Amino acid sequence: MNIRANDHTSGKSMTPHPVPQTQPSLGHLTAEAEKLFADLEALSRDKAGVSRPSYGDAESKAFDMIEEFAKGEGLLTSRDEAANLVIELVQIDADQEYILIGSHLDSVPQGGNYDGAAGVIAGLLCLIELKRSGITPEIPVKVIALRGEESAWFGACYLGSKALLGKLDESEQKLTQRDDGRTLKEHMADCGAQVERIGANEVLIDTSKIKAFFELHIEQGPVMIARNLPVAAVTGIRGNIRHREIHCVGEAGHSGAVPRWLRHDAVFATAELITRIDDHWTTILQHGGDLVATTGILSTNPQNHAMSRIPGEVTFSFEARSQYEHTLAAIEALLHSECATITYERRVDFEFDKPVKTPPAVLDQDIVERINNACLEEGLPVEAIPSGAGHDASLFANAGVSTGMIFVRNRNGSHNPEEEMDIEDFMRGISVLYRTITEFKK
Amino acid sequence: MNIRANDHTSGKSMTPHPVPQTQPSLGHLTAEAEKLFADLEALSRDKAGVSRPSYGDAESKAFDMIEEFAKGEGLLTSRDEAANLVIELVQIDADQEYILIGSHLDSVPQGGNYDGAAGVIAGLLCLIELKRSGITPEIPVKVIALRGEESAWFGACYLGSKALLGKLDESEQKLTQRDDGRTLKEHMADCGAQVERIGANEVLIDTSKIKAFFELHIEQGPVMIARNLPVAAVTGIRGNIRHREIHCVGEAGHSGAVPRWLRHDAVFATAELITRIDDHWTTILQHGGDLVATTGILSTNPQNHAMSRIPGEVTFSFEARSQYEHTLAAIEALLHSECATITYERRVDFEFDKPVKTPPAVLDQDIVERINNACLEEGLPVEAIPSGAGHDASLFANAGVSTGMIFVRNRNGSHNPEEEMDIEDFMRGISVLYRTITEFKK
Repeated sequence: MNIRANDHTSGKSMTPHPVPQTQPSLGHLTAEAEKLFADLEALSRDKAGVSRPSYGDAESKAFDMIEEFAKGEGLLTSRDEAANLVIELVQIDADQEYILIGSHLDSVPQGGNYDGAAGVIAGLLCLIELKRSGITPEIPVKVIALRGEESAWFGACYLGSKALLGKLDESEQKLTQRDDGRTLKEHMADCGAQVERIGANEVLIDTSKIKAFFELHIEQGPVMIARNLPVAAVTGIRGNIRHREIHCVGEAGHSGAVPRWLRHDAVFATAELITRIDDHWTTILQHGGDLVATTGILSTNPQNHAMSRIPGEVTFSFEARSQYEHTLAAIEALLHSECATITYERRVDFEFDKPVKTPPAVLDQDIVERINNACLEEGLPVEAIPSGAGHDASLFANAGVSTGMIFVRNRNGSHNPEEEMDIEDFMRGISVLYRTITEFKK
Repeated sequence: MNIRANDHTSGKSMTPHPVPQTQPSLGHLTAEAEKLFADLEALSRDKAGVSRPSYGDAESKAFDMIEEFAKGEGLLTSRDEAANLVIELVQIDADQEYILIGSHLDSVPQGGNYDGAAGVIAGLLCLIELKRSGITPEIPVKVIALRGEESAWFGACYLGSKALLGKLDESEQKLTQRDDGRTLKEHMADCGAQVERIGANEVLIDTSKIKAFFELHIEQGPVMIARNLPVAAVTGIRGNIRHREIHCVGEAGHSGAVPRWLRHDAVFATAELITRIDDHWTTILQHGGDLVATTGILSTNPQNHAMSRIPGEVTFSFEARSQYEHTLAAIEALLHSECATITYERRVDFEFDKPVKTPPAVLDQDIVERINNACLEEGLPVEAIPSGAGHDASLFANAGVSTGMIFVRNRNGSHNPEEEMDIEDFMRGISVLYRTITEFKK
């Protein structure tokens, strides 16, 4: 049960990786990368950080800026039916297989400059490298800048990907923007999206022609900083099971007058439940499994709780995330069996809301190996990192496209102005991406 | 750790006691008891339950009613300098030792009719029994109806006892009544108390002349109902240690992106702390110790908690109560040592407010034995019960008076209109009290 701060429960060595001694092979594009990030920041600067609303003005300005830059490099650009921006080296025929590199350009309100944009700029720089060096990759490469990945604006996420994949239904188009109150449908129409076709769930992209989808993204957790790992192949995108409100119902009573054996204490019961879940979590990690578990909200009833009153009620949330469907199923079953035991032992009841489940997205293991090989070629250490947050990549993976993700080390998480990615790490990341896509064969 | 619902951790058998086959020896006073409780209820009836404010009108009416009844039985009555009511069989000289039976006549707002009043009526009925049967006990008996035991009205408790014992300081006399806003000093003066002498902390009762103090009271917990125990000697009055606010400070983070080994999760840390305290609690009970522990208030920070956010902060209260000073000291030490371990293992900090401590009141073990013997003579089962709540008796015990308490079985706790004491149990209680005081020798 008790893991020391410097234990790694998956059994890996905890010594951080050594600093790489090599220079990134695409290091000569550093100035272009810095200019692109700086221009993007300038056009979307807010009181704190940047704000690029989904299907909104600053997002569109970012699209225009990226498009102009691409055109200036002699690349071909177009907008698709969901108003996403597409950039190509040469015109790719409709029946031709291609590699797609994509991420999003929107941000959360007062967010950081790298979440999403790093992936678009990475794809653009790969095309620029190909163009300038006159290399024609065996499989053509296309870059897509997606709209509306963040849920912060309309309360729904992956809007540009969903629209393209025929998954943005009527109900989601009716969602209203948090600031201006206008519907997503209106915002999409303003940006030039085919809102009627999208509303009819038409699939607007032929996924059978996508040989592979790649997304480069900053890591949103602290693992790569802790492990001194500049770049990593993402092994999978965690799905989750969520209970917004579980109630533990006991019986209130005088804290001095009711002995332990006659109590129905909702706090002690809930504390035991969380501790038991923690035990299972540790066991799963020790067996090499992937899991995170969180009770972000926990409270006795503020209407009647008191220091000298045995708490008759506790409300708490529960969320578990894993790359593996079977692990999510296991933790859900364990949650219920532990509640049953505690119900019996502590004479309380647990009342569950309906869980909301998001399946994990399986990333292509062949692509993970290709990314790892590219890392080794770049003189970088290799370590598997799961993605805890969802990404546009999940939608392509779940649509049956072979999908890979590359994480770049980043401080202070994302969705805040303190995001901090070193440009050298970014250049290492795009070097790995470039190697991976150019080494792809038919 | 896991105690089944029907385990008794102190090692006692859990079979409830058999129903007593004997009649209470003072059963012939049942009608008088019923009339006294009914009259008291009638004069203080509120929207729900009864309200007899401390040093207030309904309390004074109750004093008058009891006094009239006592006079009607040929007993002597007077008011002391704290405006408490004193009832005697015959005038007791100032240099004479006597037994004092007392409890209070106030109630919480919309409370029950028995909390306090049962003890006054019990004393009165003992005097009536002595008077009617012409018995002169070897040690004379005095009954005191005390003012203002409940903290609900002025925010301070034991006012009548404290005033008498020289412990009601100036600051407490400035407290204001919750409904009319007038000070305790004004209310006391209205009732005829010597507020200046009381304010000067004068001791207004010669405790060296009190051979023993007895208080009969309804049980405020569920133990005697569960154990089928009509009457019990109270073994001690639990003291307590209280922390109103302990903060567990961790670090917020993305619930999907931060693995277990990099978390600083305040909820998991607090849950483990509570579970460890529960383990110690169980161990202490298994060794025959006396302890209850409660975290009545527990909450993540409502300003920023979210289902998918690792909780960076938890605030909780902690209260432990025990009859034994050394047990309170032990649990306090265990609380701090467990926090230290968890701080190390889970990378969180615990911030403590200054604890508030109330020492236990030691009841006289010779008197406990006398009460137990009287129970046996009444054909009643015997089992030791601690008092979790404080009582006027605590003040006399802590002033050096040999003190005993008798609990009478009661459903639904106290401080609410659902208090439910069977009159037969009450008659058993006063029979035990009567036997105990009359068997006292010089």
